[in-house]
Amino acid sequence: MAATTPTGPGEHSEHAGRIMSAEMAEQPAVLRRILDQGAPRIREVAAAIAARKPRFVLLTARGTSDNAALYAKYLLEIRLGLPCGLASMSTTTAYGAKPDLTDVLVITVSQSGGSPDLVASTKAAREAGAVTLAVTNNPDSPLAAVSEFHIDILAGPERALPATKTYTASLLSLYLFVEGLRGGDGAAAHVLPGLAEEILARRAEVRQLAARYRFAERMVITSRGYGYPTAKEAALKLMETSYIPALSYSGADLLHGPLAMVDNISPVIAVVPEGHGGEALQPVLDRLRGRGADLFVVGPKPQVEAASAGFVLPTEGVAEEVQPVLEILPLQLLAYEVTIARGQDPDAPRALAKVTETH
Amino acid sequence: MAATTPTGPGEHSEHAGRIMSAEMAEQPAVLRRILDQGAPRIREVAAAIAARKPRFVLLTARGTSDNAALYAKYLLEIRLGLPCGLASMSTTTAYGAKPDLTDVLVITVSQSGGSPDLVASTKAAREAGAVTLAVTNNPDSPLAAVSEFHIDILAGPERALPATKTYTASLLSLYLFVEGLRGGDGAAAHVLPGLAEEILARRAEVRQLAARYRFAERMVITSRGYGYPTAKEAALKLMETSYIPALSYSGADLLHGPLAMVDNISPVIAVVPEGHGGEALQPVLDRLRGRGADLFVVGPKPQVEAASAGFVLPTEGVAEEVQPVLEILPLQLLAYEVTIARGQDPDAPRALAKVTETH
Repeated sequence: MAATTPTGPGEHSEHAGRIMSAEMAEQPAVLRRILDQGAPRIREVAAAIAARKPRFVLLTARGTSDNAALYAKYLLEIRLGLPCGLASMSTTTAYGAKPDLTDVLVITVSQSGGSPDLVASTKAAREAGAVTLAVTNNPDSPLAAVSEFHIDILAGPERALPATKTYTASLLSLYLFVEGLRGGDGAAAHVLPGLAEEILARRAEVRQLAARYRFAERMVITSRGYGYPTAKEAALKLMETSYIPALSYSGADLLHGPLAMVDNISPVIAVVPEGHGGEALQPVLDRLRGRGADLFVVGPKPQVEAASAGFVLPTEGVAEEVQPVLEILPLQLLAYEVTIARGQDPDAPRALAKVTETH
Repeated sequence: MAATTPTGPGEHSEHAGRIMSAEMAEQPAVLRRILDQGAPRIREVAAAIAARKPRFVLLTARGTSDNAALYAKYLLEIRLGLPCGLASMSTTTAYGAKPDLTDVLVITVSQSGGSPDLVASTKAAREAGAVTLAVTNNPDSPLAAVSEFHIDILAGPERALPATKTYTASLLSLYLFVEGLRGGDGAAAHVLPGLAEEILARRAEVRQLAARYRFAERMVITSRGYGYPTAKEAALKLMETSYIPALSYSGADLLHGPLAMVDNISPVIAVVPEGHGGEALQPVLDRLRGRGADLFVVGPKPQVEAASAGFVLPTEGVAEEVQPVLEILPLQLLAYEVTIARGQDPDAPRALAKVTETH
């Protein structure tokens, strides 16, 4: 950041965004820690849960963790063939629903492990017969305590309000867990720390791209398949830091209505996985280009070259199912840089508390 | 509509919105038709499916039908205690996932019954052992053909691009289906056609309220529990007709990030059910008021009086689980009137086709 160059109205101290900035930069080290120190314990948990032969999985989470949970849903359905659902928490906490959860694995994802509604719904799920697993950044949390199993995502304390390192740490932990369930070795993840480092070193490139959105009044973010959780998380990150209304849709849903909203003044960000998800997104990209949308692509080089702008992801030889750990990185940087460019402080979004006490 | 009074820039012919307008007005008659003619057949289908004793339910849909599917998820979880998930369709259609769907009921909701990906994923689900039910407005559709069971929502041809009568018809059909599954009589639905008529007669009131949003650049729509699908559907309706970016969140999720985006120039619409959902929404409403948000409430009178503006819903004596059929009506009217006020044609949103061919 240009500490000595005031940038006009809304200018902040030289420290604006320094906590978020530092935490984004920690991600390669966190990913390495999970692979080196976390993986054996994750494998043990997975083996114990596999022995219980769950037939159905319910995922429970909010905010950023909900996007990590959605990633796990894709992994569980595609790689394990387990039907999954995202829990509608209020059915338990507000309506007192008492579902029969025999044969059901309930996975609750929460950075802090402290949100009362997550603790209550996980406790209720365990009493209703579910196998319960908490995935948190705090082994001493109430959520870890009420859950039968726990995975520590080992991200270290997260102090910035916009979650960054706990998101990628949750993704990698969930990937290794699903690999463990299916008896895989998780080898596809080994390239991630090095590639994450490469991507995060390209901050100047993102800073330049961020100038495009200095005055944006809205954004649409789309993807498909494994990239869809990335689109949702990027939208959340942009909203909670820069306050730009960012709407995320799966490519297919975008064609079922919200496309009407997209025109040549509405910027669209497309997350294009290298693989089946990217292929399924092609017709959507063609429609968007046909409408003259300003299309920013995060994905492989040819896709970026066919767009108005973009960020080339190093996806060659990277399995599609682990690409989400990388895809979000330039979008975290983008949210950060757009927020700085708009004269706001990414560390301190209006109105938010780190542990959200929903009931 | 004031056919003889030009309304300035963007003015359309006297017929702007007449199809959507006519179809909204048909809703009381459609609801009556479902209760009188559709209910016996829905009960038969429900009895046949109950005999198969499904243990989990997966719901598959897109766009407006996806919001109807979400409503069914709340009903199934709360009133039947059946764990549910919304299907991520691309796991089957793009990734070829082959889940074991023994004991799983797969419900596919689609107005047209024609979208190729819904047909393909329903066919795949049936082959994978699921009990399949299609809920459509077209018994001769490919989706009805590949499904083991079918419920006709009896809404008559829908020609406007923004779905209105097929949404409320899907809600009521799904409500009667879930009632059938649990051996209930569905009596709570009998008040709906009359109350729908009352609400739709208050169009002039909504037209006045719509003036507030003539120049809105964004909107946030929130609710909780049974009202959450209404919030999502209202956002979709506003976006596809008026192109205003409308972001919908469950009240709890709103506190986990997007609240940063809400300030005194961001209008918030809250759908406040009379019942547990409304109670669970209270802390969110208090936070929003504390931030000086412009709060528009659709709900019971005291809630509307505590807000900046609103539309009083006749909810006295109406069971919370059927209120969504009524809640959406003033919001459909609002989307329509805001669009007319902005000089656009609600019948012809840019870029949309009635049957969306996603694959």
